[in-house]
Amino acid sequence: MEESFQQIQDIGFPALIKKIKEYQGAIRKEIVSGIGDDAAVFKASGTDLLTTSSEIFLEGVHFDLTYSPLQHLGYKLTTAAVSDLYAMNSNPVQLLVNIAIPNKISVQMVEQFFNGVDTACKDYNIQLSGGDTTASHQILAVSMTAIGSVPKEDVIYRKGANDGDLICVTGDLGSALAGLRVLMREKKDWQESESDYFQPDLSEYEYVVQRQLMPHARKDVVEAFRKSKIKPTSMIDLSQGLLADLKSILVESGIGAEIYSPAVPISLETRKIADEMKEDVDKYAFYGGEDYEMLFTMNENDAGKLRSIFEDFTVVGKLISGQDKLLLNTGEGETVELDLK
Amino acid sequence: MEESFQQIQDIGFPALIKKIKEYQGAIRKEIVSGIGDDAAVFKASGTDLLTTSSEIFLEGVHFDLTYSPLQHLGYKLTTAAVSDLYAMNSNPVQLLVNIAIPNKISVQMVEQFFNGVDTACKDYNIQLSGGDTTASHQILAVSMTAIGSVPKEDVIYRKGANDGDLICVTGDLGSALAGLRVLMREKKDWQESESDYFQPDLSEYEYVVQRQLMPHARKDVVEAFRKSKIKPTSMIDLSQGLLADLKSILVESGIGAEIYSPAVPISLETRKIADEMKEDVDKYAFYGGEDYEMLFTMNENDAGKLRSIFEDFTVVGKLISGQDKLLLNTGEGETVELDLK
Repeated sequence: MEESFQQIQDIGFPALIKKIKEYQGAIRKEIVSGIGDDAAVFKASGTDLLTTSSEIFLEGVHFDLTYSPLQHLGYKLTTAAVSDLYAMNSNPVQLLVNIAIPNKISVQMVEQFFNGVDTACKDYNIQLSGGDTTASHQILAVSMTAIGSVPKEDVIYRKGANDGDLICVTGDLGSALAGLRVLMREKKDWQESESDYFQPDLSEYEYVVQRQLMPHARKDVVEAFRKSKIKPTSMIDLSQGLLADLKSILVESGIGAEIYSPAVPISLETRKIADEMKEDVDKYAFYGGEDYEMLFTMNENDAGKLRSIFEDFTVVGKLISGQDKLLLNTGEGETVELDLK
Repeated sequence: MEESFQQIQDIGFPALIKKIKEYQGAIRKEIVSGIGDDAAVFKASGTDLLTTSSEIFLEGVHFDLTYSPLQHLGYKLTTAAVSDLYAMNSNPVQLLVNIAIPNKISVQMVEQFFNGVDTACKDYNIQLSGGDTTASHQILAVSMTAIGSVPKEDVIYRKGANDGDLICVTGDLGSALAGLRVLMREKKDWQESESDYFQPDLSEYEYVVQRQLMPHARKDVVEAFRKSKIKPTSMIDLSQGLLADLKSILVESGIGAEIYSPAVPISLETRKIADEMKEDVDKYAFYGGEDYEMLFTMNENDAGKLRSIFEDFTVVGKLISGQDKLLLNTGEGETVELDLK
């Protein structure tokens, strides 16, 4: 399939920005003025709090264009940005996207990227309403800033977790890392084959590859909290990995945790890949990042009520006294203390 | 002078972030929770509008570490971020800084960068309250997001300029480009000398070099507008250059302009450098970017009132009917029409 490749310098940045303006995601009444001025203008509610989060992503560090289609990349980076707002129990409203574009990226590829951003913005009901578009010498660099709102009594921090609270995670863990392992293996095979085309057959690994390339943020769990009037005592999104992110909650809340290792949810496909790679699947679940699942703690009395309207979460442990202490119960009668450093 | 050089991997990102937390600029009551959670939490006033702006800056494209001390760079990029908020006639409140750091940048250099950010945040009364810190393979990349607030009747857009309005600029133009020319000449001399140390003598060019390395955003003019109860009809900050930025106002307002070339304010030092470089100084003033002066239009009846409390602005032309039409009066009886494309 032949694709057109138009250099950005052939049309110029003003014309490119005009094209980008077409991809604004969902229209939000809070956005008084979007792309096209020095700053976007936002009308906040007088009672809600605003949440603001910003991240930067570089080619070669955070993504690899060999196996990341630009449309998926736009979706994924938007997911990463809004996931932080859901982790505060807030609803995203506005997205600002900065993109620094090297010569190897065509006008069409930039449009694919923003097409992915647009799709994600519609899924998360958020308006793309500003940012910056500039040239880059070698690598594609993207920065995403998301702004959301939350009734002030609903905001959830990393601090606030109490002794005895249940530790819960949504979905399953380690899938994004499993997907990355598959993609890296395919890339290596391709490089060794010296072929011009990278056309991996990934049909067997569809679930984990999708989790790596185009993850979804857990808007649904935040909606379930609001609907059930349950407020977790602390929350964080799983971007670094279960242990690293749990550590942030423990440090901020000044508490310890015990994790029941066999309870940690892992998909069959992830297990299969760990087997193929001759690796320990628990490492995928404990240390794998980019799952964008939610890790939250709540009073054990709330578990049944939440379960009655939202099923996709698993209790993986509970909070215990002892600052920053992390015990891992292997399920075989053994409990080991993990070093949190 | 020997400086310590500590690799970031020697202390790790969590320890680095702990150091960065020390540099939070001015404390703002609006910031309920700053660095250290998934998102910062912001309490907006119920009546003001918020302004949000985000930009990305890459080493080798937007700055050169050969002659940009990191402290100055932190100050300059903060200036660039807040200048966009002043251009909306709003006051900055919150800054989010994303930084992707290559190996060649030490812990101490990162601290110098944030020291510059901190100084600028204090000058502009803004709180550094979030962002992202990550590794980079080769280049330093920074993204800055600024959030401000403005009473809803005070917000000024690029659109709104009317036939007959005066076109005004603060300060003098082309100085940042003149400073860049000096620094690039010194760098070339240094490279040709094959010396290990880059120790240029810039004392003769202090003003323009400072305008290039550590520009100040025009908080004072926005304060003067509020104090005098004058509201310009349109405004933009001069980041691209006089003609490019004026064009944005003309396009958005659907109007034309006539500029009196001899009225455009240019410093003596800038004139001296253009002479040394055998270049036309008007080109510095018309096309030079990064001045971070303000370009605004206002009803001619307001000029005297503004002048009585704020002197540092010059009337450089007026708006005329004729969409996007830009006439340049050379002051020698000649008027040329510029191509705005």
